[in-house]
Amino acid sequence: MIDLALLGAGRIGKVHAEAISTIGDVRLKYVFDPVEEAACSVIEQCGAVAASLEHILDDHDIRGVLICTPSDQHAEQIKLSVLAGKAVFCEKPISTDLETTRHTLEVVERNEGMLMLGFQRRFDKHFSALKRKIVDQTYGLVEQILIISRDPSPPPYSYMKASGGLFKDMTIHDFDMARWLVDEPIATVYATGQALVDPTTRIEGDDIDTASVLMTTVSDKQITILNSRRASVGYDQRIEAHCAKATLQVNSVREDSVLVLDQTGISESPLENFFMTRYKDAYRAEMAHFVDCLITGSAPLVTGTDGLEALVLAEAAGESLRSGRQVSCQI
Amino acid sequence: MIDLALLGAGRIGKVHAEAISTIGDVRLKYVFDPVEEAACSVIEQCGAVAASLEHILDDHDIRGVLICTPSDQHAEQIKLSVLAGKAVFCEKPISTDLETTRHTLEVVERNEGMLMLGFQRRFDKHFSALKRKIVDQTYGLVEQILIISRDPSPPPYSYMKASGGLFKDMTIHDFDMARWLVDEPIATVYATGQALVDPTTRIEGDDIDTASVLMTTVSDKQITILNSRRASVGYDQRIEAHCAKATLQVNSVREDSVLVLDQTGISESPLENFFMTRYKDAYRAEMAHFVDCLITGSAPLVTGTDGLEALVLAEAAGESLRSGRQVSCQI
Amino acid sequence: MIDLALLGAGRIGKVHAEAISTIGDVRLKYVFDPVEEAACSVIEQCGAVAASLEHILDDHDIRGVLICTPSDQHAEQIKLSVLAGKAVFCEKPISTDLETTRHTLEVVERNEGMLMLGFQRRFDKHFSALKRKIVDQTYGLVEQILIISRDPSPPPYSYMKASGGLFKDMTIHDFDMARWLVDEPIATVYATGQALVDPTTRIEGDDIDTASVLMTTVSDKQITILNSRRASVGYDQRIEAHCAKATLQVNSVREDSVLVLDQTGISESPLENFFMTRYKDAYRAEMAHFVDCLITGSAPLVTGTDGLEALVLAEAAGESLRSGRQVSCQI
Amino acid sequence: MIDLALLGAGRIGKVHAEAISTIGDVRLKYVFDPVEEAACSVIEQCGAVAASLEHILDDHDIRGVLICTPSDQHAEQIKLSVLAGKAVFCEKPISTDLETTRHTLEVVERNEGMLMLGFQRRFDKHFSALKRKIVDQTYGLVEQILIISRDPSPPPYSYMKASGGLFKDMTIHDFDMARWLVDEPIATVYATGQALVDPTTRIEGDDIDTASVLMTTVSDKQITILNSRRASVGYDQRIEAHCAKATLQVNSVREDSVLVLDQTGISESPLENFFMTRYKDAYRAEMAHFVDCLITGSAPLVTGTDGLEALVLAEAAGESLRSGRQVSCQI
Repeated sequence: MIDLALLGAGRIGKVHAEAISTIGDVRLKYVFDPVEEAACSVIEQCGAVAASLEHILDDHDIRGVLICTPSDQHAEQIKLSVLAGKAVFCEKPISTDLETTRHTLEVVERNEGMLMLGFQRRFDKHFSALKRKIVDQTYGLVEQILIISRDPSPPPYSYMKASGGLFKDMTIHDFDMARWLVDEPIATVYATGQALVDPTTRIEGDDIDTASVLMTTVSDKQITILNSRRASVGYDQRIEAHCAKATLQVNSVREDSVLVLDQTGISESPLENFFMTRYKDAYRAEMAHFVDCLITGSAPLVTGTDGLEALVLAEAAGESLRSGRQVSCQI
Repeated sequence: MIDLALLGAGRIGKVHAEAISTIGDVRLKYVFDPVEEAACSVIEQCGAVAASLEHILDDHDIRGVLICTPSDQHAEQIKLSVLAGKAVFCEKPISTDLETTRHTLEVVERNEGMLMLGFQRRFDKHFSALKRKIVDQTYGLVEQILIISRDPSPPPYSYMKASGGLFKDMTIHDFDMARWLVDEPIATVYATGQALVDPTTRIEGDDIDTASVLMTTVSDKQITILNSRRASVGYDQRIEAHCAKATLQVNSVREDSVLVLDQTGISESPLENFFMTRYKDAYRAEMAHFVDCLITGSAPLVTGTDGLEALVLAEAAGESLRSGRQVSCQI
Repeated sequence: MIDLALLGAGRIGKVHAEAISTIGDVRLKYVFDPVEEAACSVIEQCGAVAASLEHILDDHDIRGVLICTPSDQHAEQIKLSVLAGKAVFCEKPISTDLETTRHTLEVVERNEGMLMLGFQRRFDKHFSALKRKIVDQTYGLVEQILIISRDPSPPPYSYMKASGGLFKDMTIHDFDMARWLVDEPIATVYATGQALVDPTTRIEGDDIDTASVLMTTVSDKQITILNSRRASVGYDQRIEAHCAKATLQVNSVREDSVLVLDQTGISESPLENFFMTRYKDAYRAEMAHFVDCLITGSAPLVTGTDGLEALVLAEAAGESLRSGRQVSCQI
Repeated sequence: MIDLALLGAGRIGKVHAEAISTIGDVRLKYVFDPVEEAACSVIEQCGAVAASLEHILDDHDIRGVLICTPSDQHAEQIKLSVLAGKAVFCEKPISTDLETTRHTLEVVERNEGMLMLGFQRRFDKHFSALKRKIVDQTYGLVEQILIISRDPSPPPYSYMKASGGLFKDMTIHDFDMARWLVDEPIATVYATGQALVDPTTRIEGDDIDTASVLMTTVSDKQITILNSRRASVGYDQRIEAHCAKATLQVNSVREDSVLVLDQTGISESPLENFFMTRYKDAYRAEMAHFVDCLITGSAPLVTGTDGLEALVLAEAAGESLRSGRQVSCQI
């Protein structure tokens, strides 16, 4: 039985705790969260005990930690955990700051630590099926990638400020998907954006809520990302890969497959409206992969470097937005 | 230039007059309709002149007549036209009465007349594409046919009585589609039906408005027809052919291909809501085929016998409905 | 912690064992299966121990048993388990024989036993959503139900004989869906069928492989079931409910939502090709419901009577097929 | 009866000649084409006579001319026709050169000429339905427009050179759609492109075959255009308008609505594979609109200015492609 500890028992922490409970040979031994109520809720759910970070890192039985604390604590906790010899699963981002991110990765590397980053979309069965078709080259080389990613509704202004803004908290997932799908370095980034959903976003949240990003890769493939903080239809996540011999699409996932044919037309059910229901199975597969890496010693599919490179693209997009210019991009 | 005459300038008569106007080498010379207003409207539309039936049949320039008069005049007008040496296109039915139908066909045959019946669905491009795939046997032999055919809303009670009821005025098109698609004799017919849409239909219209019919062919293929006089979504016409190597479907045709993704889900536009818009292109192709047969002397794809055989199935369905028994079916 | 025992560790037994492992507060204590290999496989999977039926029924800790043995052992094991005071979850059928089924239910009733039958489709989220819409009457009363249910490929002839044939082993699920959706007694049953997929089925398996069934309810609603033992597209399970204000559809579930647009057209991924993957979540929900009934003492949603009534319809369909007549149906 | 003349009897000329033949009160009196064969073919089709340009412009019965000659003759023929008092329908472009275009429009304006430009997509019923929904603001203001426009296969290198390249011959239609849908000036244009389909395109055709264009409007709406000269699925023309209260989509049009469900999955028929079949009805509606403007004296929906403004955007895209910079855009 492999023992893990959960740092941070908020919304996403609970998702991972529940995923752990459905996986054999692994259990959550400790939960660390200053908010007693949150910790209690997970403890009840899975039979773990509350503990301080020091206690967790000192326990030699603990093989790995799941970092689900607020973003600004990630970098420090990654370093402490790696130094204590624990494998680390960390929610994105490592940091919203490029320097801190680079420094954290150096510490991980120097200590030969294991760090897996939480880009759960890579574990979604639909996007995975798309990726396999691209890798197989059944349909020839990819030429254009289109990622449409729209949230049901905007987060509070306070969240935007802490998160680093749209490119770093929302588009970052799309940057990672783009990198994963084309599997080659990004050469240029051009971005345009505005607060169209809620103009106050600019003033109160110092952020935009609607963005279009156009990137090219080193072999001149074209990648477009369309983002909005608000889509009436729900959590709208689509990808299209235009290849030499076919155009491949993954469409958004609906709550159920009921069709209603009435005087208004033919209606499908609404989309899954929340990332936690939309990606429920992906979160489970992600955690199973982390546990599997722990057991077999193999390298995780999503590394700290993936986190860094997505952040580099987010920075480039921000710079392009401010300057109105195409930004050349290299790590 | 081939000259034709139109008998009956009502709703469907106008459809055919318009179709004629888009076909080269042919024109409508006469229109016969006791209702002056109706005749005038077509005359204006296409430059024909009003004439009596006698005048039309006496004019040697007239090569063919299009019979679009009320159903109870069809048989007599077919006979007169054939005796006058005219090719005949007639809207279904020849008659709602089996004996009259048989007698009319005998007259046509004895005089080597040309009679094409108006089952326009055979000229629909979607159903034609389905038929081709079945004939090709690309997907193996057909085993089950499902025809769903629902009207937007019921006709007046007066219409039902004159039309011979649901099986003879509505299902008759589905009987013809079934025969056309399986291309072998029907062996048994079982039907069940009720006035579920409007219970008064039974009393006022002596009719049902919802029916399910299950037939078998001589080689034991199974055919299901589902009918309703009312479908909120509009004019709902679908066919599924389950074959050895694939299940083939033709779905209903929508007004346009706009999709609306909002908080209620993903909605397609409503269906074409009226048979004259749904089958506009089919009516044109049907008339072009009639003209083509006239020019080349070839036999039409839909003959009087097709009209007779569909009527036989409608009679059998009626008998099954009354008796609660499976009816064996042969001409 | 509630202790359960599994009788029969074959294909479906393993599905339930796995479902149990994901539910809290319950565990599998014993596995009974004369085939040692099968028992071992489940034992490894979930940490249960092998035991004889007597031992299981004697253990007072055991609250419920899951009967997944061959069909001809169900009736006897239900009775023994109920007499031993255990709650029973039993795979369909109770028996393929009507008398045995009735007698078994009498024993259950006399002893106030709890018996839940395994019609897992009622726990499928898509069909459940359809059922809710019908119950709500959001779209008015149901008038026509169409159930299309086709398997990927036929079972061995030996299976057909033991299973009681197509109506009792395959259509039985559709009979239950029909009853559940209309929620009123069936009045008449008419069936037609043939061995079209494989003519040898008639001789070797004494069975048909393609069937169409048309039923009416006491209020004259119409129900159609289309079955085939072979559908190239995979496990094809669809339902359409035509209601006064809308036509509702549930379509078959695909492996993933990738679309391929190439020179052959626009292609969706194949359907889930096996009932165990198609209904994986439904099996889990079904077992969770059984456990919930055990804990709360509430009656299960699928009872022995549901099993009996579906069997009555299967018998009626068989009689109609043999006689070519509509069969009146009452329990 | 209104008399028209056709200048240029090539592929697109024939399309317009055929459209004219289905419209009442109008006929083609003359055809001008130096290629005798082409002229003859149209003459046979519609009963016009061959004539020189001088003869046509001198005939006072001629109310309008349809200019379908090679692009480099458009500007001169527009001017001559307007000076001769004829209404002009001209295929795009007026010229591939901005100065020539501006000068031509000045001549038209000075002489109060009527000039309608052939952007036929505005007359497509699907895109028109989309436009109406946007204008109605049923779903709130548009925030993001996505236009995907891919051809089945690349034209010959010779065509590319004469046409002015991808932005001027292909994207120009998308620039017009974008302008029409947002109905406000474009502020910035950024483009990226490459010869990915056929690298020789760069050398032999001095052109690209794959492009992504990102534009903003004066009110910061975002517009994305994705182009490719090759799409295996056929003529792929889609538009998505993301609005405040809904995301609206128009998908590509298929040859027919047959679905094939077999072991490879669920397949729709291929797309209409050629712009002349895809936009057949649109070409007819376009011509009917021109005739209607002629009769009523009302201004056409697509003017010379629309042609100029689309060309300005094509020039801006070309400049952005060369410089790697965002181009500010004003007429």
